[in-house]
Amino acid sequence: MPPELDADPATVDFETRATADDHMALRLWLRLLACSNLIEAPLRTRLREQFDCSLPRFDLMAQLDRHPKGLKMRELSRRLMVTGGNVTGLTDKLVEDGFVERRDDPTDRRAYTVLLTPAGKKLFRQMAEAHEGWVVQLFERLPPAKKTQLFALLGELKQSLGATELRD
Amino acid sequence: MPPELDADPATVDFETRATADDHMALRLWLRLLACSNLIEAPLRTRLREQFDCSLPRFDLMAQLDRHPKGLKMRELSRRLMVTGGNVTGLTDKLVEDGFVERRDDPTDRRAYTVLLTPAGKKLFRQMAEAHEGWVVQLFERLPPAKKTQLFALLGELKQSLGATELRD
Repeated sequence: MPPELDADPATVDFETRATADDHMALRLWLRLLACSNLIEAPLRTRLREQFDCSLPRFDLMAQLDRHPKGLKMRELSRRLMVTGGNVTGLTDKLVEDGFVERRDDPTDRRAYTVLLTPAGKKLFRQMAEAHEGWVVQLFERLPPAKKTQLFALLGELKQSLGATELRD
Repeated sequence: MPPELDADPATVDFETRATADDHMALRLWLRLLACSNLIEAPLRTRLREQFDCSLPRFDLMAQLDRHPKGLKMRELSRRLMVTGGNVTGLTDKLVEDGFVERRDDPTDRRAYTVLLTPAGKKLFRQMAEAHEGWVVQLFERLPPAKKTQLFALLGELKQSLGATELRD
């Protein structure tokens, strides 16, 4: 794409990195990344504006919501794509805000479990409902049959990625 | 998915947030995000290990590589998904490292243009080649026909996202 074309704001994103002779895999990746960013950005903005909540904080609460008996810190870290130090910081803040509780593990004196408090569950339910509504809106112009096809193809991609080890 | 199933490390990712009765759009989004993270994570690691380069630094150099006459800082910021302050910090470091040069704009005393130095171009070419090789590997288990289908569907998604404004 010549530089003058990408002055159009609608085309300014990661996909503008690709040029015509790039490999298909690279074009596919840049398009996937562009879509992911086009969806993530408004979700991030809305969560911040309406709930004063960051995406990592939302993801952490989502994991705890799926595990009502709580998770150990190392299990929680493994489930999130943020580093251990950040998980600790996010958890500390949620405890301070009254949305997460730490509970000693009777079987392991050095470990503890973290779980949502009733206030945390209530807040997460509100956020999750709003979040799902935004996601539904973002995808509503893509016809249902295309959604189903895309879901299936991404399933194949995900499976193939799980089986792939990068060589040097 | 019951908690005991998602103890399998292969299934531990953002998609494990979705439960069977979630809306199709939400399942699709979590799968797209999972794929995006499964590709981005190894790319991030390799760039760091082999070139001591962060993804935002790589993206910044990629934009400058596509604009050999240079970009003004505000144009560069608009093209990148990082905040203005970070763009300044990344640029300062690249200038310090000799890979980017600042040039005064003769038509605007308050503005300047940034561009890759010859050393910056050379380094970026090496990184871009390695990066493309990793991306090709990551997608190699997905059959070519599926890549083409996925590329087309993501194109439709991207176009539909461009036409969508979130309502409250």
